[in-house]
Amino acid sequence: MTGERDGALAFRPIGVVHSPFGEPEDIPREWNRRKGAFDAVTGELEIFPEHAEGLDGLRPGAALVVLFAFHKAGFSHLKVTPPGEIKTRGVFASRSPHRPNPIGMTVVRLAARKGNVLKVTGLDMIEGTPILDIKPA
Amino acid sequence: MTGERDGALAFRPIGVVHSPFGEPEDIPREWNRRKGAFDAVTGELEIFPEHAEGLDGLRPGAALVVLFAFHKAGFSHLKVTPPGEIKTRGVFASRSPHRPNPIGMTVVRLAARKGNVLKVTGLDMIEGTPILDIKPA
Repeated sequence: MTGERDGALAFRPIGVVHSPFGEPEDIPREWNRRKGAFDAVTGELEIFPEHAEGLDGLRPGAALVVLFAFHKAGFSHLKVTPPGEIKTRGVFASRSPHRPNPIGMTVVRLAARKGNVLKVTGLDMIEGTPILDIKPA
Repeated sequence: MTGERDGALAFRPIGVVHSPFGEPEDIPREWNRRKGAFDAVTGELEIFPEHAEGLDGLRPGAALVVLFAFHKAGFSHLKVTPPGEIKTRGVFASRSPHRPNPIGMTVVRLAARKGNVLKVTGLDMIEGTPILDIKPA
């Protein structure tokens, strides 16, 4: 690749989120503005078995960055109005899911690992969210 | 999409990095372990003009999360040995570029914006890196 425009980059989910939130509408909108609102939300990151070995070394209590696809996001907007705000701003100055590349980033805390499944707290993703990557925070 | 295995997800770069580091080898390996090693490194995030409006509202001094493609990463390894360490660990417990989905995450500081170009400090990416997303940190 060079500095020129490149074509599409393809990624495959490494796993899937299991969440008490079935749909985006199940998440109270104001929670996204309230620090710690998701702290008590628990769920699972099911990593596909062929990647399970890549989880070795993750310790309970660790904060994990999860990159995921906003798989229910609609069209991308370059200008957005965040919840509770009046002024519009550029999408790259926001966490809106409706972005040119609908990739989300969140931080969860690892409660326990059972093989290819991570039990986590602080979950703000919905059921069925495709997981792209996990990194130490 | 459901919780089943999904096919590939395609993303298109929104821009490209201009960096004093031409190749991965130009970055001293020990810098990745030293906090603040990249603080003085400056460069540019060139956002393709059709996305420039999405930068509105980013203010000088702001910390920005940049998601990017490790476009020079080779094969993915499930077990890695981080620089300066002896024990191997799972790739998801590491920041290695050689991961199932070679997506990188870094935080830079915005020095100035000139239209579709962001001048930033704290750059640890190489020249030509495809940018996938920018979010407020």
